[in-house]
Amino acid sequence: MPATTSTKVHNFSAGPCILPPEVFQKAAQAVLDLDGSGLSILEISHRSKPFEAIMANARQLVKDLLDAPSHYETVFLGGGASMGFHLVPQNFMKPGGKGAYAHTGEWSKRAIKEAKIAGEAVVVASSEDKNFNYIPKGFAIPGEADYFHFTSNNTIYGTQYKQFPKSVVPMICDMSSDIFSRPVNVSDFALIYAGAQKNMGPAGATMYLFNPEALGKTGRTLSPMMDLANHAAKDSMYNTPPVFPVYVIMLTLEWMKSNGGVAGIRKRNTAKAELLYSTVDRLPIFQGTTAKEDRSDMNATFILKDAALEPAFDEMWKAAGISGIRGHRSVGGYRASMYNALPLESVMALTEVMEEFAKKNG
Amino acid sequence: MPATTSTKVHNFSAGPCILPPEVFQKAAQAVLDLDGSGLSILEISHRSKPFEAIMANARQLVKDLLDAPSHYETVFLGGGASMGFHLVPQNFMKPGGKGAYAHTGEWSKRAIKEAKIAGEAVVVASSEDKNFNYIPKGFAIPGEADYFHFTSNNTIYGTQYKQFPKSVVPMICDMSSDIFSRPVNVSDFALIYAGAQKNMGPAGATMYLFNPEALGKTGRTLSPMMDLANHAAKDSMYNTPPVFPVYVIMLTLEWMKSNGGVAGIRKRNTAKAELLYSTVDRLPIFQGTTAKEDRSDMNATFILKDAALEPAFDEMWKAAGISGIRGHRSVGGYRASMYNALPLESVMALTEVMEEFAKKNG
Repeated sequence: MPATTSTKVHNFSAGPCILPPEVFQKAAQAVLDLDGSGLSILEISHRSKPFEAIMANARQLVKDLLDAPSHYETVFLGGGASMGFHLVPQNFMKPGGKGAYAHTGEWSKRAIKEAKIAGEAVVVASSEDKNFNYIPKGFAIPGEADYFHFTSNNTIYGTQYKQFPKSVVPMICDMSSDIFSRPVNVSDFALIYAGAQKNMGPAGATMYLFNPEALGKTGRTLSPMMDLANHAAKDSMYNTPPVFPVYVIMLTLEWMKSNGGVAGIRKRNTAKAELLYSTVDRLPIFQGTTAKEDRSDMNATFILKDAALEPAFDEMWKAAGISGIRGHRSVGGYRASMYNALPLESVMALTEVMEEFAKKNG
Repeated sequence: MPATTSTKVHNFSAGPCILPPEVFQKAAQAVLDLDGSGLSILEISHRSKPFEAIMANARQLVKDLLDAPSHYETVFLGGGASMGFHLVPQNFMKPGGKGAYAHTGEWSKRAIKEAKIAGEAVVVASSEDKNFNYIPKGFAIPGEADYFHFTSNNTIYGTQYKQFPKSVVPMICDMSSDIFSRPVNVSDFALIYAGAQKNMGPAGATMYLFNPEALGKTGRTLSPMMDLANHAAKDSMYNTPPVFPVYVIMLTLEWMKSNGGVAGIRKRNTAKAELLYSTVDRLPIFQGTTAKEDRSDMNATFILKDAALEPAFDEMWKAAGISGIRGHRSVGGYRASMYNALPLESVMALTEVMEEFAKKNG
């Protein structure tokens, strides 16, 4: 039975989320037969030549796309960015030392919680006073901290750092929800990590891009599974890696490369975000929920000023084949996630519904 | 472009390894369109109703197939069984306590290494004296140990416990390479864990089946990511799970259920192993490498008595469409891995090549 596709949905899911159609096609083909080998990508050994090439290619593509310094290392591990929250203090915090954290939402909260289990966490900036609807700016990072950690984009609240902080201590960033959406000066960071399931691939792998010279300085005895240097030394194959997620990441990174790289992606992301936010701002029945200067290009959050209109609006966008724009349960309202692979056409479909709804209810 | 399959290979890979053909078909279809939803399994939210049902189904199937006590819990986490090696002392060893380990090969070695980082590991039995070619028996497990850990099947050396040890302390088993290959009395175990990529699904998820009453007794403050009780309390969705690997696990478990369950699987595994080992024993040019009573039904290891014949033998089995029977680099010779989804026909293809080769070189 050949695999088939039904009518496509406009998928605004906050993650796991849409990937490019050619990635779905190639991934489905590889599940049946990887490159004419007669074997499924699901049944090949991770020590086979085809998979070694896939892993090497995926690791290199990360560095190429982000123009990373050549000595930086990339590994793909299981466990999600939540495992990253745990690995950060393990790899960067001295026993008795402390990590500095900017607190901008649910994910930074979890990262801080992990640091407090390992030692001390100092919150150097927070937007909790306004339910995380802005990005703190102009804060000081203590020079005696072992590292400074922040979350570049906050999926739930819809805020995003437009300029990155400057730090004299090693800077670490969870870029799970905006990695590869815009250029980054990688050498400013000791570690960038990101769960794959927004802009990079499916759930099941997390990417760590780091300066190996920043590791091995804590004096901690680490489990080999917790030790980023160990994973890099084993070419991201200390143990069986998440084979299929890494394969789909490779396909997605190849798609990015052949579509103008990160600069090209950013251009399209800007166009999508401008269309959506300008629609929200122009139609008086809608209202954005975050500070304008901190609006995320990835996750646009907005409300209907009259919440009583929600059921009618929900009916209309669902009828237009739109999926996944209900806001996170902790915020309510709406959230349109516009990750790299979401086409402009999907944003046009949504904004047309918004216009039409405003006309009827304005 | 519809996805297609080329001529099928006899895949004896030691893992990741062969899965049932209908699982490959259904998984490929779901990558394009999950159950007619218009969405790929790779792009749906893990908080969506379809995926919540998949996760619940996969968790329940584990318990049904192994006839586990109803209060036992199942979770699927990233990181492989190597993460399991780390989680065992975190969840079961008191600070200042110790774990008892049986040492039967590479995987027990890694498990012991992790325990030594967390505290004390006592090796209560070992087959290292004979390069792990047998299973130790009749050993004593100290009553003051926090737990006893063993590896039910040793992929590299081709040995397998035919009877499980008895333990007065909580018993923990890494069943990565023979889970679901035979019935197990689950209530004898505080924890059974297994990387998915042999008998259960693709790489990228590890199954933990445990008695929740055996947890929370160490006094350790655990990271939420390291805490099995936390993952169970969150229905295996504390953070984004490895969505696609869990889906393929569910498909594979459904296949098992509709093919006679574990009892039916065992019958077929026994037939495959008997055919292969009887061929090895009958043909004088071959020789098994492990103690006969400890021979693994999953991984049969053997050598050509005259190693000079290897290139000619390799040519012959490759020509017959056979893949993956070279022994592990640390042992040499040959290893035929015969996991649940390997059809008897593949073993027949291999034994026919062995017969033919013996005739020519006898």
